[in-house]
Amino acid sequence: MYRPQIKVLDCTIRDGGLINNHLFDHRFVKEVYKGISASGVDYIELGYKNSKSLFSPKEYGAWKFCEDDEIKKIKEGVESNTKVAVMVDVGRVNLDDVKPKAESPVDMIRTATYVKDIDKAIHMANHFADKGYEATLNIMAISRDRGSALTEALHQIEKESKVIAVYIVDSFGTLYQETTEELVKEFRSILKTREVGFHGHNNQQLAFGNTIEAIIHNANYLDATVYGIGRAAGNCPLELLVGFLKNPKFDIRPILDLISKEFIPLRNEIEWGYIIPYAIAGMMGEHPRAAMALRNSDKKENYREFYESLTNTGL
Amino acid sequence: MYRPQIKVLDCTIRDGGLINNHLFDHRFVKEVYKGISASGVDYIELGYKNSKSLFSPKEYGAWKFCEDDEIKKIKEGVESNTKVAVMVDVGRVNLDDVKPKAESPVDMIRTATYVKDIDKAIHMANHFADKGYEATLNIMAISRDRGSALTEALHQIEKESKVIAVYIVDSFGTLYQETTEELVKEFRSILKTREVGFHGHNNQQLAFGNTIEAIIHNANYLDATVYGIGRAAGNCPLELLVGFLKNPKFDIRPILDLISKEFIPLRNEIEWGYIIPYAIAGMMGEHPRAAMALRNSDKKENYREFYESLTNTGL
Repeated sequence: MYRPQIKVLDCTIRDGGLINNHLFDHRFVKEVYKGISASGVDYIELGYKNSKSLFSPKEYGAWKFCEDDEIKKIKEGVESNTKVAVMVDVGRVNLDDVKPKAESPVDMIRTATYVKDIDKAIHMANHFADKGYEATLNIMAISRDRGSALTEALHQIEKESKVIAVYIVDSFGTLYQETTEELVKEFRSILKTREVGFHGHNNQQLAFGNTIEAIIHNANYLDATVYGIGRAAGNCPLELLVGFLKNPKFDIRPILDLISKEFIPLRNEIEWGYIIPYAIAGMMGEHPRAAMALRNSDKKENYREFYESLTNTGL
Repeated sequence: MYRPQIKVLDCTIRDGGLINNHLFDHRFVKEVYKGISASGVDYIELGYKNSKSLFSPKEYGAWKFCEDDEIKKIKEGVESNTKVAVMVDVGRVNLDDVKPKAESPVDMIRTATYVKDIDKAIHMANHFADKGYEATLNIMAISRDRGSALTEALHQIEKESKVIAVYIVDSFGTLYQETTEELVKEFRSILKTREVGFHGHNNQQLAFGNTIEAIIHNANYLDATVYGIGRAAGNCPLELLVGFLKNPKFDIRPILDLISKEFIPLRNEIEWGYIIPYAIAGMMGEHPRAAMALRNSDKKENYREFYESLTNTGL
């Protein structure tokens, strides 16, 4: 038994790029694109579409900007039914840089936003929808921003936006099954004409479990990454999600090959996954930035002091 | 809000010992005992009580046998409210080797059993209860042995046994939240006068999530290990479970210290955790032994071939 409405989006290159300033080289991105295409996964997200006036191409790799020509080079010569997505942040993209869909290799544009920026985000997402793209809104820091402002934002999205899906993004890796269930139910109850999506973070080893919980309560747009790669604790592992879903269109074997050949070596170079300071930040509902700073210091394994620093913040 | 009936059992030394033939040295075990005691965790399980006529002390460490004198040396000089547990397997312990509780440093004896051995297991557990110990039954390989034989075994336990708790043991790391919920509800509905316990394996990164699910449905005896150590994929990480439970009697900091000082270095020597062949075995409901053999071979990262070997077994 499977649910044909479910759409899996692989955000390996986009979220993984947050670890290394999006400096994945062409060969690596092409291997991932080939593997994801062969696995039958619905979408692949390759990076952010940022304005080059805000970020320097000297400091960041191609996937911080996702220019159409770069994406075309990745797609070239690969048989694929996998649609291409890119992400934009509120205020960081020049809307005029986005060509009409008919001229672009991109299928979907996802706008990442905080609840407080929902007006701007709806404006942007509608702009992309008007240009012919599938558009979504991805609401970040959801564990921090629950309550009446979120409820109001969801009503506004349902009323004013042209998006096909709205994602719950557990930015801090702090949701448990019960909070995931509550959120998916709230989203579903208000967003009657949209799909609900889920993007988990794996601080507490719950990204996959919470994604299953979201599926149970009828979220249909699901994010995952190969071997769970992603900033800090990383994300829901794609191989586990594909193993769980019973849709015969998916094939786990190309994903296993990617892990064997690309991600085991890569994990020796850059760090992500179950690492105690990220777990502590997740338990406390904190942004991972303090934990990331700790991991780059000579106190990287001093968990007690880090724990105390988060608990003793005072008023 | 917390549930005072919840009892957490740390089985770090017992389940971790399955990786290294129970060869943890005295210093290490004492450090773990001190840390677990300081954290306020209810029980610590130190190993198996096996007959020396079945296993050679030349091959296996002290914690394969858990002699009373060894346990006394660990407890000596440490202030602790943590009770000591040992595990026994059906047919591997000489019942006469077990002294009456009044003469022993052990508080609880857990009998691990398959459904098919339930008669012998009840006999053994009742023997331990009669000698004054807290006795439990831990039903292994639960994902394989569901159905009428399990239901009958549970009725027999409720009717004939003297155990305080019966554990669901997800030996193959193959349960999801829904199957966990079903099992906990079935156990609870039949075992009306006993507590239900849960021991997850982390093949699919679901040991913690499934433990939360078990808690939601009123399982009160919960197994976990420091940094998730345990054979193959390991177990529910104790630090996550203690972070989740709101009982003020627990202190996570001594567990964080153990990880910093003991388990980060140990993980560089012996392997456990999220490793793809164990994930594949978990998805397929297979015993981890084939994956363990793979990890000891020169094909340790050849996931596709391993996957095919499990799917093409024929009839």
